[in-house]
Amino acid sequence: MKKRVLTGINTTGTLHIGNYVGAIRPAIQDSRSPDVESFFFLADLHALIKCQDPERIERSRMQIAATWLAAGLDPERVVFYRQSDIPEIPTLNWLLTCSTSKGQMNRAHAYKAATDQAVAAGKEPDADVTMGLFCYPILMAADILMFNAHEVPVGHDQIQHLEMARDVATRFNFQYAKPDEPFFTLPQATGGSAVEVLPGLDGRKMSKSYNNVIPLFEGGRKALDEAISRIVTDSKLPGEPKDPESTSLTVIYDAFAAPEEAEAFRAELRAGLGWGEAKKRLADKIDAEIGPMRARYEELMAHPEEIERILQAGAAKARALAAPFLAKLMHAVGLRAFAPIAAPATEAKKKAAAQPVFKQYREKDGRFYFKLTLGTRELFHSEGFDSGRDAGVWVGRMKKEGRLPEGAPVALLDGVTADEVNAALAAFLED
Amino acid sequence: MKKRVLTGINTTGTLHIGNYVGAIRPAIQDSRSPDVESFFFLADLHALIKCQDPERIERSRMQIAATWLAAGLDPERVVFYRQSDIPEIPTLNWLLTCSTSKGQMNRAHAYKAATDQAVAAGKEPDADVTMGLFCYPILMAADILMFNAHEVPVGHDQIQHLEMARDVATRFNFQYAKPDEPFFTLPQATGGSAVEVLPGLDGRKMSKSYNNVIPLFEGGRKALDEAISRIVTDSKLPGEPKDPESTSLTVIYDAFAAPEEAEAFRAELRAGLGWGEAKKRLADKIDAEIGPMRARYEELMAHPEEIERILQAGAAKARALAAPFLAKLMHAVGLRAFAPIAAPATEAKKKAAAQPVFKQYREKDGRFYFKLTLGTRELFHSEGFDSGRDAGVWVGRMKKEGRLPEGAPVALLDGVTADEVNAALAAFLED
Repeated sequence: MKKRVLTGINTTGTLHIGNYVGAIRPAIQDSRSPDVESFFFLADLHALIKCQDPERIERSRMQIAATWLAAGLDPERVVFYRQSDIPEIPTLNWLLTCSTSKGQMNRAHAYKAATDQAVAAGKEPDADVTMGLFCYPILMAADILMFNAHEVPVGHDQIQHLEMARDVATRFNFQYAKPDEPFFTLPQATGGSAVEVLPGLDGRKMSKSYNNVIPLFEGGRKALDEAISRIVTDSKLPGEPKDPESTSLTVIYDAFAAPEEAEAFRAELRAGLGWGEAKKRLADKIDAEIGPMRARYEELMAHPEEIERILQAGAAKARALAAPFLAKLMHAVGLRAFAPIAAPATEAKKKAAAQPVFKQYREKDGRFYFKLTLGTRELFHSEGFDSGRDAGVWVGRMKKEGRLPEGAPVALLDGVTADEVNAALAAFLED
Repeated sequence: MKKRVLTGINTTGTLHIGNYVGAIRPAIQDSRSPDVESFFFLADLHALIKCQDPERIERSRMQIAATWLAAGLDPERVVFYRQSDIPEIPTLNWLLTCSTSKGQMNRAHAYKAATDQAVAAGKEPDADVTMGLFCYPILMAADILMFNAHEVPVGHDQIQHLEMARDVATRFNFQYAKPDEPFFTLPQATGGSAVEVLPGLDGRKMSKSYNNVIPLFEGGRKALDEAISRIVTDSKLPGEPKDPESTSLTVIYDAFAAPEEAEAFRAELRAGLGWGEAKKRLADKIDAEIGPMRARYEELMAHPEEIERILQAGAAKARALAAPFLAKLMHAVGLRAFAPIAAPATEAKKKAAAQPVFKQYREKDGRFYFKLTLGTRELFHSEGFDSGRDAGVWVGRMKKEGRLPEGAPVALLDGVTADEVNAALAAFLED
């Protein structure tokens, strides 16, 4: 079996080249390994926790789906789907909710951070906490366990949630599985290449909260150039030797260049290349890679129905795995179809075979009847009654007496003897 | 519109005639009113909170489904389904989870009772609390709001949870609905006839926890007789006048008799009817009503596939309502199909119509091309390139310069002028 790697994609906000270099590009790269079966999903049910702006939810997840596709994610090769298109996930979420202790959720970092903040502001600890925030690690566990992912690339802040997913899986396995046939694989958190951090314009980690980002596609080449023009450098003039390590420009260049190109770029800076020209070269370098992607991105954004088609196909692939697995889990917890169940159905059939059963029914003449059966054999039919209650009184009396009363309004079927009937009715006394 | 009444049925434990008289019979009676649209569901997802015994879950919900059907619930008339057959409910549960404040759940009676008990035993408050118990009122809200029930017959202990369902509905309506078009009806808790309490063998409320019950179907007539023989009376002999109010026997008799019969029974007791004979009459009286039901119950239990068929048909009726309503709610929160969405799709189309778009593609010859379109009109096609990156460099350059560069490897289409192309490309500079 190939290694299953599951990547959740936040669907709020727009993306910058730090996201591209640190997460999107390496994840897509990894997904091309022949040893890996990759799952990528838009975590849009999670997005509802923090965002109650429907238009923003809608726009963001479309932009982010288009970004990943434009960046080269191959929906034929990987399973690429929206969380909200997989109804098996919220159902599994409930099963896992019943196997999660509340004490564990009390210790979740994201929850504790929210309560700390409230307390610091002089409020009740839970003042700003929704149940969505509190329950979020369980939904995340459902995302992962639904597909029995072996590895989940996560940032440092999510490692605890991965641990929780392992705990929930362990508890469910313990409660419902045979020790040697666990339902759930315990997932591993991996950082891998997917956590490479790109510096922003000012040298700190590129992040929207620092306002130091280079946008990925939004705003086109123009916005790319503008952002790059704001990369912090010293004020050395063209011709003066420069320290390539004095700015994030070179590190960003590295992310888009082959090692020998990166070295040549540094050499030119040391030899006096002007910052303006260096920035232009960086912009060209980045645009050579992302320009074609941007064109594809714009094409996708102009044709949302194309993204929809791709995601629907991905949902079908995901559900082909999720639906039978959930059915197995539902069976495990006892939520089973009544017909094909093993033990009790067999039990009921045995009983039906060995023991007499009264059946009451109504004929087309509108009158009420009952009959006695023993397994598949019918012993007698009653006369018709005006009310079901009257029929029931006779049934009740026969069961209570455990024999055929004098004058019982029934006709034995061909080949049935009174002794046989009395033997059958006697079984009711043993009940 | 008819009044919608939704009745949740616990699927753990077996039933006694107190349940029948106090809940099952009146609820079935009410469901026959022409003004009412009734929903009855087996709350089997809730059952997982307290029971991790799959065989018990399976057996109980089958017995309880068979009981309601045998007691006269008409699955043609009402919507009778298993909660676990409606995947829309767990999904709605998650939407509502995001609209519920944690502070409110902290105050739920069932949760507080569990923490009080743990503290009294010297444990951490949450020591014995699962997330299932803690989140239970949200799932209950989803059950009710999924079908926009007007009324929910509940016992006293559930009134607070109904209030919570109203609060969650109000919050969701406030967040996502227009003020005059709320998504959710605010449900009313009703007691109605469904909370009649039958005394048990010893005169206290009939309850398994008091061990004073008369079983409904289990054990057959024999178990009925045995339980009735244990009804507490005084030791007056046959012939001695008796106080009909000195025992629960008469009150139980009342529940199965017409008023004049009940009065005649009391008169006979006052006239000296023996307790033994009185008990026999009570047993006959009850059995006249439930005997035929028991026969039907046994028939159903011997044919689980018949119950399954009925519940599947009920699930189909329920989902015919739930699926389109959930789709509407998903749309409201922003989880929308990308193609038919109103605003952003129109926005994208407008933009596509008004603004030039580069499209990159690959031909059968294996080479890479791009073209420029303005709305539905194509302006030029490029020559073929060996790599998509080379094509992208040209696209990037044209966007950046906002005009057709000298020597650009493109062929204008018939009737297109260079001025038109330059005007279109200039739009990229305004981005």
